[in-house]
Amino acid sequence: MDAFDRLEATIRARRGEDAATSYTASLFARGRGKIAQKLGEEAVETVIAAMGDDARAIVPEAADLLFHLCVLLADAGLSLDDVRAELARREGVSGHAEKAARPR
Amino acid sequence: MDAFDRLEATIRARRGEDAATSYTASLFARGRGKIAQKLGEEAVETVIAAMGDDARAIVPEAADLLFHLCVLLADAGLSLDDVRAELARREGVSGHAEKAARPR
Amino acid sequence: MDAFDRLEATIRARRGEDAATSYTASLFARGRGKIAQKLGEEAVETVIAAMGDDARAIVPEAADLLFHLCVLLADAGLSLDDVRAELARREGVSGHAEKAARPR
Amino acid sequence: MDAFDRLEATIRARRGEDAATSYTASLFARGRGKIAQKLGEEAVETVIAAMGDDARAIVPEAADLLFHLCVLLADAGLSLDDVRAELARREGVSGHAEKAARPR
Repeated sequence: MDAFDRLEATIRARRGEDAATSYTASLFARGRGKIAQKLGEEAVETVIAAMGDDARAIVPEAADLLFHLCVLLADAGLSLDDVRAELARREGVSGHAEKAARPR
Repeated sequence: MDAFDRLEATIRARRGEDAATSYTASLFARGRGKIAQKLGEEAVETVIAAMGDDARAIVPEAADLLFHLCVLLADAGLSLDDVRAELARREGVSGHAEKAARPR
Repeated sequence: MDAFDRLEATIRARRGEDAATSYTASLFARGRGKIAQKLGEEAVETVIAAMGDDARAIVPEAADLLFHLCVLLADAGLSLDDVRAELARREGVSGHAEKAARPR
Repeated sequence: MDAFDRLEATIRARRGEDAATSYTASLFARGRGKIAQKLGEEAVETVIAAMGDDARAIVPEAADLLFHLCVLLADAGLSLDDVRAELARREGVSGHAEKAARPR
C-alpha cells in the first residue's frame, strides 16, 4: 500500500478518536475553517523552505502539506482517489494544449 | 503506475521541452521563486475552495497544488518518494505521541 | 491626506466604474472569493520578496498587499479606520501582556 | 500621530527588548524566515475570515497582518513611508492605465 494511501487511512481511523489526545481528531473537531487555515500555513512553510538554501528542508514541509490536504479532503467527503481521477482526466490533454488546461 | 507517479514522470519529461510551448518547462525556466509563488497561489485557491459551498471544487485545486508541489520537488532534486519516505518514517510515531510529532 | 487614505478613497471611487476598464471595479464585480484570493496571492509574493536578496523588492509587493487589503475591507463594508481602531484598542495592552494579546 | 505610525514606532521600540518577554523582539530574534512565515499565516487567516459570515472578524486579522508587515519592513530596513511613496508614485497612473500598472 502506498504511503499516501496509508496516510489517508490513518487520518480516517484517527478521525473518530479523542480530540484531546489526537491532533488529527482535533483538526476535524475544530472544523473546516481551521483545517483550511492549517493547510494554508503549511503551504507558507513549504514556500519558505523552498526559498532557503537546504533543499532537504522542503521534504518535511511537503509531508505536512500533504497530511493537511488529506485531512481537508476527508473533511469534505473526498479522497486522494478523487485527485488521482482529476489528474488522469487531465492526462488526455496534449502537450500543446497544456498551457490552456493548466491554470493561469 | 499511480497517477501521482505519472504526474511526476510527465513533469520530468516536460522539463526539457520548449518553455514557449510547455507551461511546465516555463515554470522551471522562471526558477525557484516563481515555482514557490505558484505553489503558494494554488494553496490559496485550495483554501478558498475549501471555504465555499461546493466540496467538488476542492478537487481541481488540490490537483493544481500537487502539480506545483511536484514541480517544486523536481526543481530541488527531490521527488514524491522523498515525501513518502518522510511519511513512512513518521508512521513509527504512536498515536499518543502524534501531537508532539506533528508541527504546532 | 495620508497615502493610505487616498488609496482607500481611490478604491471607493473606482468601485462604481466599468469593470472592463478598471481593475479595481473588476475585483468588486468578481466578488469576495476572488478578492480574498488576490490578497492571499499578494501575501505569497510579499513572502517570496522577503526571502530574496533585494530588500527594495518588498516595497511594491507590500503596496499590492495593502491595495488588495483595502479592496477587501471596502467589499466587507469596512475601512482602514476600523483597523486603526483595533490597533488603538490594542495599544492599551502593556508590553508584559503583549505576547498574550498578539496571536500565537 | 496615525495609528499605523504609532504601530511602527512601537515595533521599533520593542525591537531592542528582551525576546523572552516581547513577542515583537522574539520575531526579530528568530529572523527573516520566521517573520515572513508569520506574515503569510496572518494573510491565510485574513483570507479565511474574508470567506466567513462575520465581516467584523476581518478587522483583527487585518490588524495582525499589518503588524507583521510592519515587522517585516523594519527587519528589511524599510518603513510604511516607503510603501506610501510607492502608492504615491502609482497615483500618477491614470485610470485607463490602471490595469497595466496593477499586478496581474
